[in-house]
Amino acid sequence: MELFYSSKIEDNSLLLDQDESGHCVRVLRKRCGDTVSVIDGNGTLFRCTLVDDNPKSARAVINEAVNDFGTHPYNLQMAVCPTKNTDRYEWFVEKATEIGVDAIVPVIGDHSERKIFRTDRLKRIVLSAVKQSLKAKLPEVRESLTVTEYLQSAPSSSLRLICYCDSTLPKEKRTAIAEALGKSKTNDICILIGPEGDFSTEEINLALTLGWQAVHLGDSRLRTETAALAAVLAVYYFYPDGTAID
Amino acid sequence: MELFYSSKIEDNSLLLDQDESGHCVRVLRKRCGDTVSVIDGNGTLFRCTLVDDNPKSARAVINEAVNDFGTHPYNLQMAVCPTKNTDRYEWFVEKATEIGVDAIVPVIGDHSERKIFRTDRLKRIVLSAVKQSLKAKLPEVRESLTVTEYLQSAPSSSLRLICYCDSTLPKEKRTAIAEALGKSKTNDICILIGPEGDFSTEEINLALTLGWQAVHLGDSRLRTETAALAAVLAVYYFYPDGTAID
Repeated sequence: MELFYSSKIEDNSLLLDQDESGHCVRVLRKRCGDTVSVIDGNGTLFRCTLVDDNPKSARAVINEAVNDFGTHPYNLQMAVCPTKNTDRYEWFVEKATEIGVDAIVPVIGDHSERKIFRTDRLKRIVLSAVKQSLKAKLPEVRESLTVTEYLQSAPSSSLRLICYCDSTLPKEKRTAIAEALGKSKTNDICILIGPEGDFSTEEINLALTLGWQAVHLGDSRLRTETAALAAVLAVYYFYPDGTAID
Repeated sequence: MELFYSSKIEDNSLLLDQDESGHCVRVLRKRCGDTVSVIDGNGTLFRCTLVDDNPKSARAVINEAVNDFGTHPYNLQMAVCPTKNTDRYEWFVEKATEIGVDAIVPVIGDHSERKIFRTDRLKRIVLSAVKQSLKAKLPEVRESLTVTEYLQSAPSSSLRLICYCDSTLPKEKRTAIAEALGKSKTNDICILIGPEGDFSTEEINLALTLGWQAVHLGDSRLRTETAALAAVLAVYYFYPDGTAID
């Protein structure tokens, strides 16, 4: 099944933008009368019939709406410091979207080499990965902010987990993510992953003061983007019963 | 800590090859008398003193040997069909090495688009990832073989898991990897991940006949390389107590 995306949905029909129309009509050679599946980016899949196969502006009528298509039973916000190599961050964003994430927040730490991070490419990667992995809800890609700002703004009602390597806090004093989830009453989760140079002592102290829990990812030394993906999978595996997709 | 690799280890000294010598002496400016950490690729780390800082052929004397450095408490062979895009396979190999894997076997399925797969680049990626993630044992990169050959050659004493999407076997009839590990008496594990076009019915039937267990990776539709990495992490998280690294 191939999914298209539309942000122009009316009562019983929708328009595809130029990129999506071209892909639908020119590349996949869909014609009037063909069935197409379109997501709204907010969790709904529409099963439609193409009624205008204009390759710049295709239109389809909606036959059926499927809510919560390809969703997962948790709400996960991943705040991850940018890697030196942008490819590595983009790879994380693609993989996290395939597995299941709700928001991606690039955060700039005291030790981050990159202090500025553009998110426009990430939004395209997220859209492509959502369609490829048969989901209907686009993870939100937030504008970057500092680690300190993020620590202070993440809602205290969520399970807030910070993952760092600082050896002043030995592994025994941190919990595995699955253990933290097991003790949590909420499935609203924020996970913060530091930069290549780790968090500063000030950032760690602030996090602990604000009630963030320190977690570890086992014994392997992982790169930033690998650690971030390992964290997403720890959450994904903790909630085994997602919404089945067909 | 920076690790170097040597395949030329004598009783109490070792030689670095041209690449490693150049990195050690030219890039990192190590000089005679400096401490260097060298792995043998078989699980041992040597703490050494540099005694010849020749940038083409550096030599060090061994002060201490640390066995089983950065190992993990399982033996995992990942047999994964090549992806159309080689970059994606290489990403998987790098990430699996960081997390912990013992052998990587490119397998060619009936539905694989690629029928030939070269492994020389993978060996370089594995070496780089082993050093970066502070391990001393290089995962073995095997030459490619067909899925049928692999199914028949994997030792029946190991836990053999096949991961596929074929809807003729619904998710309820497959187990999660953690569940299969929980019922297993061995920590020798072989996991087989199919190509983009999935396994053929003949391959699946052969696997089940030979006693392979069908497993699933949850509800998300994952790309080949994402599925393979998700499988490695399912094993990694099942065995929480690896060997601590410092």
